Amino acid sequence: MIAAIEPFHAIAISREAHAMEAAGRSVIHMEFGQPSTGAPAAAIATAHHVLDTDPMGYWESPALKQRIAGLYRERHGVAVDPEQVILTCGASPGLVLALTCLFTPGMRVATARPGYVAYRNTLKALYLEPVEVACGPAERYQISAKALAALDPAPDGLILASPANPTGTIIPPDELAAIARLCADRGIRIISDEIYHGLSFDAPAASMLEHAPGAIIVNSFSKYFSMAGWRLGWIVVPPALVDAARARMGNLFLTPPVLAQRAGLTAFDCADELDGHVATYRRNRALLLAALPALGLSSIAPPDGAIYIYADVGHLTNDSLSFCRRLLADTGVATAPGVDFDPVDGRRFIRISFAVSTDRVEDALTRMIPWFQAQSQR
Amino acid sequence: MIAAIEPFHAIAISREAHAMEAAGRSVIHMEFGQPSTGAPAAAIATAHHVLDTDPMGYWESPALKQRIAGLYRERHGVAVDPEQVILTCGASPGLVLALTCLFTPGMRVATARPGYVAYRNTLKALYLEPVEVACGPAERYQISAKALAALDPAPDGLILASPANPTGTIIPPDELAAIARLCADRGIRIISDEIYHGLSFDAPAASMLEHAPGAIIVNSFSKYFSMAGWRLGWIVVPPALVDAARARMGNLFLTPPVLAQRAGLTAFDCADELDGHVATYRRNRALLLAALPALGLSSIAPPDGAIYIYADVGHLTNDSLSFCRRLLADTGVATAPGVDFDPVDGRRFIRISFAVSTDRVEDALTRMIPWFQAQSQR
Repeated sequence: MIAAIEPFHAIAISREAHAMEAAGRSVIHMEFGQPSTGAPAAAIATAHHVLDTDPMGYWESPALKQRIAGLYRERHGVAVDPEQVILTCGASPGLVLALTCLFTPGMRVATARPGYVAYRNTLKALYLEPVEVACGPAERYQISAKALAALDPAPDGLILASPANPTGTIIPPDELAAIARLCADRGIRIISDEIYHGLSFDAPAASMLEHAPGAIIVNSFSKYFSMAGWRLGWIVVPPALVDAARARMGNLFLTPPVLAQRAGLTAFDCADELDGHVATYRRNRALLLAALPALGLSSIAPPDGAIYIYADVGHLTNDSLSFCRRLLADTGVATAPGVDFDPVDGRRFIRISFAVSTDRVEDALTRMIPWFQAQSQR
Repeated sequence: MIAAIEPFHAIAISREAHAMEAAGRSVIHMEFGQPSTGAPAAAIATAHHVLDTDPMGYWESPALKQRIAGLYRERHGVAVDPEQVILTCGASPGLVLALTCLFTPGMRVATARPGYVAYRNTLKALYLEPVEVACGPAERYQISAKALAALDPAPDGLILASPANPTGTIIPPDELAAIARLCADRGIRIISDEIYHGLSFDAPAASMLEHAPGAIIVNSFSKYFSMAGWRLGWIVVPPALVDAARARMGNLFLTPPVLAQRAGLTAFDCADELDGHVATYRRNRALLLAALPALGLSSIAPPDGAIYIYADVGHLTNDSLSFCRRLLADTGVATAPGVDFDPVDGRRFIRISFAVSTDRVEDALTRMIPWFQAQSQR
């Protein structure tokens, strides 16, 4: 039997939202985890230049791999050889690459529930078995060394994300170290999704590479670098897996987009512009948190990072997909249903992405507050 | 045990070639199947416009899907709904998508040997079993209904390519129909790699969709459209597989690059420029075929399409990878070793891509002819 894979329901919401816009409605896009800003201006200038000068064949950028390797040395104090960096067409195929380097069909891989939709679905598509560990507000929706120790038998692998999607919570360094030790003891291979690194509102997030040199790190230009539609990401693999990872990249994916690689290298020099986006997200987050009482929402884990509020709307619905559809149809605000992130409890959650401009967040709140109040009075 | 995957050796040759160029050597790149031309001028103009106006989030182009669907109606007389078209980041992930829609681990999938390196390796990476059918010059290196009928037990699937890589041979329409009938009878699911469509030197190639409506078609903007480094391709799936394919695309890959999608739509209106490239390939092919006696090469299947000469160099070497390395080091001409396409007989073959300018082909021949003559006198 071919694996049954749930669609990413937010894509359906997004298509409806775009259809509404095409029909003239005003829509605020808070359904995807994508910055509404474009790439940094200097990166776009690089792309213009490349368009005019480079015929763009199959190619991978040695300079970009070097720059990425340097990031781990500078930011995390970990030496990474540029050869350990594999450039990918975004974090999603990066995860596919990581999984095929580590696991064979039937192996069991633990993830936090709620968690990013593609963990569960990509595992199933590759005939790996997701072991979903329920994580509630008490655990700030994150997996812990204690929860991993309680799994019997031990899973073969673990995917973790810090800051997490959909909740934005960060695993503290001590806990990250405890998870790394536990995984080493029990022979659990680690994939650390660090796609929201750079987007944190207090202390920056630690990399799993600081604690587990054998981990595979997944990252991308889609979030901090504001280049989602350019499709560029990377994984860092331990030296023993470089050949396996390169062979898989060359066969399953070939090479990432040339324009994205060359513009992405420039984007590394655009910290001022990119940190300005983070300041916007910080403002947006504060606005949303302040509006929670007016929305009648109380149960959320205030996000340490990333670009989301994951809110319990269980007092209003037990069917988050229909709820998101109604919210969109009535107000033009597109959000993602919790079922994308948690097939069990997600029926009573929605995820609101705040990676839009602050005036759009204000506009969204103006639309949502009366709608939520009307819902609770039905 | 994690599947052992051979690297794509041409990538190693290409890295050596680029290192030589960086050191000041003159190199002629005939190692990859990639046009040395860039995207059509109008497509590049579109990309400039998009860079200045679109922040580029996760997005798929409805207009492009419609245009691609129209291609099958106009060129092959087959009705395809735009929903059947799944846009991908190139043909390579398109193949991954197709395989995960059709097969479960352990299933057996037939391919022609020689054949494109990623068929064998991607099958192995997904824990599918390649059933390589040896195809020699007598079969013009192509799989036939007769060869498929002789496989016992019947394989679960078949990947075919016409025009083929590395040989450029086209399967005649009658044989394509016979293969479709045989596969229907024996329950063999078909993936038809049509990435070289548009690049043929006599009659255009038929689509498997004309004969097998249940087949999955793989295609890309990398060859005819001359947009390899933009990373854009598509698959066409039968209506019953649309949901499965969309779910896999959304989870495993998310969306293709926005710039490539928007420029690709424009490229559909650039037939004059693109057919000019085909005229160049026709000239290059004729030049290479005429030079075969001077090179001392006699055993090739004159390519009906694609952009390659696959030549038997068995009188000169039994190690095509070393042979390509020496050829590159001595002359600056980069080619692909036959072992990428055929792990058994490929040790005595090389693949020469002629998707470069005609003066580069002439330059390459000037360098190669004395070198080949010296080799045969060693």
